[in-house]
Amino acid sequence: MNGAEAIVRTALASGVDVCFANPGTTEMPLVAALDAVSGMRPVLALFEGVCTGAADGYGRMAEKPAATLLHLGPGFANGIANLHNARRARTPIVNWIGDHATWHLAADAPLTSDIVSLANPVSGWVRSVRRAEDAGADAAAAIEAALAPPGQVATLIVPADCQWSEAPGPGPALRRTSASAAPADRVARAARALRAGDAALLLGGLALRGSGLRAAARAAAATGARVLHDVFVARLERGADLPAIERLPYFPEQAIASLAKLRALVLVDARDPVAFFGYPNVPSRLAPEACERIELAAPGEDAIGALEALADALAAPRDVPLPARLRPALPTGALDVAALGQIVAALQPEGAIVVDEAATSGAGWFAASAASPRHTVLGLTGGAIGQGLPTAVGAAIACPDRKVIALQADGSGMYTAQALWTMARESLDVVVVVCANRAYRILQIEVARAGIAEPGPAARALTDLTHPALDWCALARGMGVSAVRATDADSFAKALAEAIADPGPALIEALL
Amino acid sequence: MNGAEAIVRTALASGVDVCFANPGTTEMPLVAALDAVSGMRPVLALFEGVCTGAADGYGRMAEKPAATLLHLGPGFANGIANLHNARRARTPIVNWIGDHATWHLAADAPLTSDIVSLANPVSGWVRSVRRAEDAGADAAAAIEAALAPPGQVATLIVPADCQWSEAPGPGPALRRTSASAAPADRVARAARALRAGDAALLLGGLALRGSGLRAAARAAAATGARVLHDVFVARLERGADLPAIERLPYFPEQAIASLAKLRALVLVDARDPVAFFGYPNVPSRLAPEACERIELAAPGEDAIGALEALADALAAPRDVPLPARLRPALPTGALDVAALGQIVAALQPEGAIVVDEAATSGAGWFAASAASPRHTVLGLTGGAIGQGLPTAVGAAIACPDRKVIALQADGSGMYTAQALWTMARESLDVVVVVCANRAYRILQIEVARAGIAEPGPAARALTDLTHPALDWCALARGMGVSAVRATDADSFAKALAEAIADPGPALIEALL
Repeated sequence: MNGAEAIVRTALASGVDVCFANPGTTEMPLVAALDAVSGMRPVLALFEGVCTGAADGYGRMAEKPAATLLHLGPGFANGIANLHNARRARTPIVNWIGDHATWHLAADAPLTSDIVSLANPVSGWVRSVRRAEDAGADAAAAIEAALAPPGQVATLIVPADCQWSEAPGPGPALRRTSASAAPADRVARAARALRAGDAALLLGGLALRGSGLRAAARAAAATGARVLHDVFVARLERGADLPAIERLPYFPEQAIASLAKLRALVLVDARDPVAFFGYPNVPSRLAPEACERIELAAPGEDAIGALEALADALAAPRDVPLPARLRPALPTGALDVAALGQIVAALQPEGAIVVDEAATSGAGWFAASAASPRHTVLGLTGGAIGQGLPTAVGAAIACPDRKVIALQADGSGMYTAQALWTMARESLDVVVVVCANRAYRILQIEVARAGIAEPGPAARALTDLTHPALDWCALARGMGVSAVRATDADSFAKALAEAIADPGPALIEALL
Repeated sequence: MNGAEAIVRTALASGVDVCFANPGTTEMPLVAALDAVSGMRPVLALFEGVCTGAADGYGRMAEKPAATLLHLGPGFANGIANLHNARRARTPIVNWIGDHATWHLAADAPLTSDIVSLANPVSGWVRSVRRAEDAGADAAAAIEAALAPPGQVATLIVPADCQWSEAPGPGPALRRTSASAAPADRVARAARALRAGDAALLLGGLALRGSGLRAAARAAAATGARVLHDVFVARLERGADLPAIERLPYFPEQAIASLAKLRALVLVDARDPVAFFGYPNVPSRLAPEACERIELAAPGEDAIGALEALADALAAPRDVPLPARLRPALPTGALDVAALGQIVAALQPEGAIVVDEAATSGAGWFAASAASPRHTVLGLTGGAIGQGLPTAVGAAIACPDRKVIALQADGSGMYTAQALWTMARESLDVVVVVCANRAYRILQIEVARAGIAEPGPAARALTDLTHPALDWCALARGMGVSAVRATDADSFAKALAEAIADPGPALIEALL
């Protein structure tokens, strides 16, 4: 067997069996290995940002890494933005990057670049294979690194000769690391803080699964504490059968006002909340300086166990009754952000995975959908736009029996629209809702926030998408996805109901 | 004035007056400065790879930098692949990357990343503005660095507070560095080598302009030396009124055979040629080891002056008569790579700028067009695909009175198809010819070269683009560009003639 086959066999033995790929010449032995060894599903994307975003969506849902197969430094670079999001989401991903043959690097051929310098900012682990003999062991180390709690991006650079040369065999079997238990003294400290009042739990990571939400609700019921989550979440379980949880506002002034009275903030697999951007005379940290921060469970620790221990320490009731909440009715008339959100919330099926890159157009849905049937939200953790459609690809491949709804802003959707082609090729069960406001609306808001009442021609030119207007239906059809345009609430509801009823990919351009 | 305005005023005073932009919140003061100061043309692209590729095309044609305006690390990362090409082309480019306010970096907000680590591999010069007071001087230093012969990518990271805070004024006036003269002893050495026979001149960079080609032809006429250029060129002047020049083959076996008899290779603003990729048992260097390399002019030296000095030292005739060469006639019948190339060569207008990212589909045109009217070729210098359409945008903005023809492979075209929208918005005079073979053909060839006669399902899945077939006409119309499909030679010739006659952007999907 050669080094490439050693890598693929190692991956399969570790349960890594999906590869999001856009290979080139330096990855041909790995491509051949995907044929020589059966069991790995190769998924072609027409741009590497789709590969890495798909691996992010896959890893968030499957709780194990997909592999990506990327072409040298420039191919990898095209995937960096979505790996940035994956890094913030702590998604396990294994990147395989082909490189020139070791002896060819000195020639500084056109595609040669410093891959390590490119990979470091988005990878928790980076290694270059030095000899084909090491390929299997290096592949095993990459998977182990990716899965080490809380999960991370692991990048393995594989020179072409280390792929095509003889290797002794696959790497060692996967050694899994378990999440460590949070120390008991932190539980006691958090319990004291919650009992003292004016406290909140901020949940992130694994704490946003159902059992985490229920344990947090117990602690809240016993103490009156608030339960919060950050505006952007890697994965949030949500719906009528789960306790509600408060979302922090996006703009820092609002978040600061929301947290102003807090005397204690208990962090559960979550970071001390900070402003998304710095603004003049606005602090970076959103909770008051005097507010005590208590890290109940750090990322990589057993957040759900810690929350359950906290609830028990507070002698909280085992079950907290859920308040009655109503799913919205279908609105009629004009289609705006609120109506769009209500319609999606009213129609989304049980078990939907909602990929939310709708930016300013998504607020209506989030507000309306708390009582929709159980669903999963995948958010824009790192703020690098172009995440939504690729992440929907990966989520659909991880969960073929669940409907994926991609709420997609038009501006960010254009970053990685190539994902539509992969949806068509793989017949993925994704409904894409393009929220077409034909603007970088968030930037228009930022211009106004900066005190510019009348934007000049440059500010208008750089935030407006009306000349020419994008035709998302044409774009979708150009990539093999059927599409319809909706211009009012009724036509949108009809189109969405039909798209949900039909398996396979569909796109609705919702004109806002 | 604030730091942002100091940067824009510095740029304008240095002749930098085009900005390819996709800004975000951290660049809003720079956007406002584009309105506060008049004279800078902001060009919006819907993806950063379009911005950087456009800056590459602009810089190659305008011989001065455009600015790019990019959003933090992830936004910059989306532009890396085309900056990689620009680095190999030695194109002057100034990147302006907004970053978080200096005091906000410690918060490690979601979009925070190590921008310097990302920027270094593609930038000859990188600096972070430390204080608004320095913004003007730093902007001036970036432009000076970009223009230092032979030209390079200069990246200036500008924290948001260094944009919005008060600055004393713009930076110093531009100090231009001239190309230095190549030393006389190298001219004498090159002359001796050419006189000895079995020698070739390999031209690159500035040597590929008309005066360089004519001087090289004089030297060749006096000695019988061959005149060569690398397969991928930053900018090559070409056509019926210029001496012909030999293109090195792409595959290393063919290039090695072509150079096998050389005893001397004179490098004129060119690097010792190397294989694009390493293959088993194929050397990296294409010329024989025993072949003497003589660097007549290094990049950044006066290549044309050196060639003229060489021709004079060889007592070469002042004028070399051009052999009679025929422009091809219009073929009829089936549309294949040869027919497509002949039709473009037959119809391309005087002064066309041909952006060649046609990959395997471009060989026919290059072979057919040597006697077409004078034109300029812009090639894929770094091998990072997705360069063609963005580079066409930049070339069209640099040269509004010339027709740009983008010969575009379909696989690479999908990387940065968003460039079509900018062509429509800016009414750019670009004819895009999509060479639709519905495959990553070069990879299918590489699979065969690797000895795999019957590709398996993975190799087929990862190189085939037929399921679903892309509809480039729909994609173009979705972005506001009119488009037609051509399926045979006659319909292609008709469509191309019409697109050339009409100003403004047009796309032809040529089914191969």
